[in-house]
Amino acid sequence: MIKKILNNPDYIVDEMIDGMVLSHPELIKRVPETGIIQRTHDKKGKVAIVSGGGSGHEPAHAGFVGAGMLSAAVCGAVFTSPTPDQILEAIKVADEGKGVFLVIKNYSGDIMNFEMAQELAEMEGIKVDSIVVDDDIAVEDSLYTQGKRGVAGTIFVHKILGYAAEKGQSIEEIKELAENLIPNMKTVGLALTGVTTPGSSTPSFALADDEIEYGVGIHGEPGYRREKLQTSKDLVDELLTKLLEEFEANSNNRFAIIVNGLGGTPLMEQYVFANDVHKQMKDNKLEIEFSKVGNLMTSLEMQGLSLTLLRLEDDFFLEALKATVDTINW
Amino acid sequence: MIKKILNNPDYIVDEMIDGMVLSHPELIKRVPETGIIQRTHDKKGKVAIVSGGGSGHEPAHAGFVGAGMLSAAVCGAVFTSPTPDQILEAIKVADEGKGVFLVIKNYSGDIMNFEMAQELAEMEGIKVDSIVVDDDIAVEDSLYTQGKRGVAGTIFVHKILGYAAEKGQSIEEIKELAENLIPNMKTVGLALTGVTTPGSSTPSFALADDEIEYGVGIHGEPGYRREKLQTSKDLVDELLTKLLEEFEANSNNRFAIIVNGLGGTPLMEQYVFANDVHKQMKDNKLEIEFSKVGNLMTSLEMQGLSLTLLRLEDDFFLEALKATVDTINW
Repeated sequence: MIKKILNNPDYIVDEMIDGMVLSHPELIKRVPETGIIQRTHDKKGKVAIVSGGGSGHEPAHAGFVGAGMLSAAVCGAVFTSPTPDQILEAIKVADEGKGVFLVIKNYSGDIMNFEMAQELAEMEGIKVDSIVVDDDIAVEDSLYTQGKRGVAGTIFVHKILGYAAEKGQSIEEIKELAENLIPNMKTVGLALTGVTTPGSSTPSFALADDEIEYGVGIHGEPGYRREKLQTSKDLVDELLTKLLEEFEANSNNRFAIIVNGLGGTPLMEQYVFANDVHKQMKDNKLEIEFSKVGNLMTSLEMQGLSLTLLRLEDDFFLEALKATVDTINW
Repeated sequence: MIKKILNNPDYIVDEMIDGMVLSHPELIKRVPETGIIQRTHDKKGKVAIVSGGGSGHEPAHAGFVGAGMLSAAVCGAVFTSPTPDQILEAIKVADEGKGVFLVIKNYSGDIMNFEMAQELAEMEGIKVDSIVVDDDIAVEDSLYTQGKRGVAGTIFVHKILGYAAEKGQSIEEIKELAENLIPNMKTVGLALTGVTTPGSSTPSFALADDEIEYGVGIHGEPGYRREKLQTSKDLVDELLTKLLEEFEANSNNRFAIIVNGLGGTPLMEQYVFANDVHKQMKDNKLEIEFSKVGNLMTSLEMQGLSLTLLRLEDDFFLEALKATVDTINW
């Protein structure tokens, strides 16, 4: 049984949010009586980027609220979409008159609730547009998803769209940027252990002592194959081959990557894995121009990681990734 | 048995270092054929702050190399001090003519090897001084230590001394600052699980399914008491009471804190814990003016966390903590 540090599973998200805003009052504040975390920093007259989803993926998304990234993040219950009224409230508080752009991970609950909130906000006269992130190539359709799931690549979306908003781009320009970004970004992961939600006594799935699963989702959704644990080199070979098959051949060999820890995997192992990614990309004559390594989009205490490739089709992507921001966790 | 992502346990640190420098070439570089990570950013004519120790505590210390913090970090084998010749080499590459200040965690191996390196460097005409960090109040003497162990507070030392160096302070001024800092900083931790070094098949210690241990060290050294797992509130009450007993009563009630994840504990739980720290500090009429929450000084995949209190006896401490830096993980 997994031991957890908490008081009452029913209040874990509420107490987490209080802990975040008490710890970082210079960057974020809580909209009272809600699961909305809002940036303290003003950026008058710019488009607001808003994201959110179920909790349990920290630092996503609240850790990326701040100057240069998100204007607000909506925190649902653990692994559960926030409600439409919470998302609507986030849109209202984030809007500065230039509209709100929503970054939605592709899960059925999120899609339904964010779209409903978008409609309600539009009825109140707020300009809203959105993009659905579906970077996980592991499986088509899944436990909570139609189509492909949205996972760690979402952090690059926050960063790149956040930069565009900070530069004063219009909501139409941000939409176009997002639509160019999504098809160039692919992710796939692997798990070494299951994950147990607070209050549960058993993990959502179990793996044998010597077993891993390729393609597991960030809520423990089934992947595409189980195997014995292999070396880092072989794990990278499997994931990278699968990712590269998804990119159409063209002359652009420049990429940005994310090696994302799922929560319980030490940074040491993430960097061993990153080393093999860099080496094998080089063997494939592919250049990595930007790397992000760490726990960005987690699944509570799950051991495992994911690899994201973003093809740098637009120089703006790289410029945006390299820009400094003022958030807790980028 | 703990599953790990690696190729060969003998090369895990070597591959980790390669992975770090390949991922962050804009910030750090490796001194070839060594375990030394050096900043790429020049700060000509200033004191260099150098730290290091056994690996397995990432992001400490390499993640804190960069403008405003460390000039170099020396990475030993897992949980093993770097050798004197490696530390000497780090001193030589880091020195810019104004001397090198060493931040040493209080473990017998580190003390011996850093002191030997300091002597060798001084014989070569380099000005070197140092401070020993012994913030862990859990126990006197331990498995690898005489006196108190050095743990997560070390990150505040990097930050505050790094800022002083960046401001152009002399090595004598930095020594005085360090000597004022150390007595005002106390840490204590707790573990929910043991830790298994790469290549081992069993953890260094074991806890029952419902058990925690107060005061465990960052290499799994024994703590001061085992108990059943309790609520976050009760855990905070225990650690905070123990910490506050260590501070002599005076009229200064201003503190900076670190809630440090030991590697396998999700950020969600760290923030629930941080929330209780903030509340109980307030109940004690103590103010928290700066908080850092996250995996800073880890113990591989160990579940657990530590709490550090730094009394803000000098306004310079807070100014230094708030300053921006250019590192991978601060």
